[in-house]
Order: sequence, then C-alpha cells, then structure tokens
Amino acid sequence: MKLYDSQLAPNPRRVRIFLAEKGIEVPTVQVDIGKGEHQEPEFLAKNALGRVPVLELDDGSTIAESVAICRYFEGTQPEPPLMGTDVLDRARVEMWQRRMELEVLLNSAQSFRNTHDYVKGRITQVPEYGELCKATAIQRLEWLDEVLADREFIAGDRYTIADITALVGIDFGRITGIAVAPDQKNLARWHAAVSERPSAKA
Amino acid sequence: MKLYDSQLAPNPRRVRIFLAEKGIEVPTVQVDIGKGEHQEPEFLAKNALGRVPVLELDDGSTIAESVAICRYFEGTQPEPPLMGTDVLDRARVEMWQRRMELEVLLNSAQSFRNTHDYVKGRITQVPEYGELCKATAIQRLEWLDEVLADREFIAGDRYTIADITALVGIDFGRITGIAVAPDQKNLARWHAAVSERPSAKA
Repeated sequence: MKLYDSQLAPNPRRVRIFLAEKGIEVPTVQVDIGKGEHQEPEFLAKNALGRVPVLELDDGSTIAESVAICRYFEGTQPEPPLMGTDVLDRARVEMWQRRMELEVLLNSAQSFRNTHDYVKGRITQVPEYGELCKATAIQRLEWLDEVLADREFIAGDRYTIADITALVGIDFGRITGIAVAPDQKNLARWHAAVSERPSAKA
Repeated sequence: MKLYDSQLAPNPRRVRIFLAEKGIEVPTVQVDIGKGEHQEPEFLAKNALGRVPVLELDDGSTIAESVAICRYFEGTQPEPPLMGTDVLDRARVEMWQRRMELEVLLNSAQSFRNTHDYVKGRITQVPEYGELCKATAIQRLEWLDEVLADREFIAGDRYTIADITALVGIDFGRITGIAVAPDQKNLARWHAAVSERPSAKA
C-alpha cells in the first residue's frame, strides 16, 4: 500500500492527519505539484483527474479523493471513530464534515487558486471569484465561532474528520489572509486545541 | 419526521431519488426558494446556512446536507445498498459520489448561480467564473463518457448514490447548456437507463 502525497497541498494533509489520529502508518510517495508531476501520464493512470492524494492498494487498484481514502481506513480500523459512532452520529459527522469542506476548505482553496501568483499561468484564474470566496470563508469563520460556543469540537464532544477538514481549511487560508479574528474566542480555543494534537504536524 | 424540500433545486432531488430507490416515504414540506423562505428565521433555525434539503427528526433535531441525509437512511434501511457493500466498495462509491458532486454537480450549479437571470440581484454573480464552470462541466462529461465505456453504472455494476448525483448534475446543467453530446454514446446509454428508473421522477 502507498499513499501518493504532497506536502504543499491541503487535501493530502487531511489524510495524513486522519492516519495519525488512527495511528496508521502508510508509506508515502511525494508528488511534486510544482514540477507538474500530477499531470504526467504515470500519475494520471492512477487518478485521471490529476489530483493528490491517491491511495494505491497492494493489488495496484487506487482510491482517489481524501474523504474516500479516510472512509477506507475508518472501515479497516474503526478505532478511534473519526466518522461517527452510530447511524445518527455518522449522519451528523457527515453533515459537519461537508459543511467544513464546502464552506471553509473549498472557499479557502478557491481563494488561493483564483488569486495567488503561485498558480498564475497554470490554471485559469478569476480573481473576482477568488475575492468572493475569501469573503465567504471569513463569514463562515464568524458562524463557526458561534457554533463552537456550546461544544468542544465541531461535530460535538468528540474529535472527528470535521475538525480535520476545518483545521486544514483554516490553516491553508492563511496564504490568502483568511484567519481566525481576535474576537473569535471559541474558534481560537478550538483551533489551539486541535493544533496542539500531535496529528496536526502530520 | 419531515423533509424540507424544494422542487426546483437540485440537491433536494438527490434525496428524493435516494428515498425512492430505497422505497422510503417521508412527508415533505415545500420551502419556496423563489419567495426567499429559506432565508427566513424559522428556516434558518433548522439550517443556519439557509439551504435545502433538511431532515427534521421526531425529536425536532435536524440533519442538513443531502449526502448526510442519505447516509442516515442508508443506516436505517441498508437495502438496497446505495453507498457501498463492504469497506472497499464504500470507499470506491464515496470516491465516485464525490467526483460526481465536485466535478459535475458543483460546476453545473456554479454555472447557474453565476450566469443565470433567475438569481441575478439575489446573490453576487461572477459570470466569468460561471462560464469557466460550464466549460469544466462539459469537459467532465467527456471524461465520464470514457469512464462508462466498461461499466454499467458510474461506480461499477451496481446503481449507487454516484449515479444519483451525476443524474441530478447533468439534468440541472440543461438550464445553462451543459448536456450530453451526440457522440457520447456511453454517457447517453447510462443517462437513458437511469432516467427510466421510476426514482428519476421523484
């Protein structure tokens, strides 16, 4: 088994943190996005969409998409549960994971993709859209601060994949100026706590 | 139990098709997006993000996000399985469901949101981004036609939530001119087959 990984991109970090929380070690292969290795035929054979991460199983078959890779490891090693504990909890964790992905991480990533010099000339950028995503991400952090007023973690009293996605989304947002505001005490408390977990360094 | 639904929006249709495939009937409450009912305090109390669908359980608690609602019903009634049958299959279905959501449905929805007169003045539109999403969605349908060359359904030989998301994404794309091209025989065959299922009318 191998994990095609990239230290610079936000999505592979989600999987690395997930694996660290589970205590699972998987050999990684670094894909150099800066050099365009993710667009080379050898990698496209593993994921036609040219995205990291990709998990390659021992039979050579592959699973792309961070959350699908996490789902696989949640199945092979259920403890500690990071995607819910029963039918209702699994649905609630999925709700929060999706909100963190679509409202925080995606806006943070689109802000970067559409405005940052690093990708200029490599993809079509629409800076006006990137600014809109940045503004939306900042609004969502205000909402998240309210959400965290009455709970320790994003989906409730247990650390889950929703916390991983939010952490990665917020940390990646720094590049384009999306950050926890000084008055967001609940969000700051949560961010400090999840950042102190050893998995955050993964 | 009640499902807050909207006949015009694509995401609630995903849940309606999913429920129809399971043979589950849930009373629905129509939320009139045209009149802005999804932004009224009563609805925002059910989903602070102001989006449909929302499932309200008998204890008054709510689950938002289409896929989270589907996950709930997959748990309460596993047959027929629409989100995978074992650990590996669940990961693969999740991969395809996410690809259909992020590559087809999201681009289709963003094309509509950023270019269509129906939402003009109600949300900030970036037409240039909408056009980019339309072009991306059309490219993704070319890819999907290749994917479907060697399989009956999107995630393999079984109908799954990935087919539901793709169907809803493609059908919603019609509004902005995203459509199956005449030479996309595999995609056309698949689209005809999933459209003929009784669930497609849900």
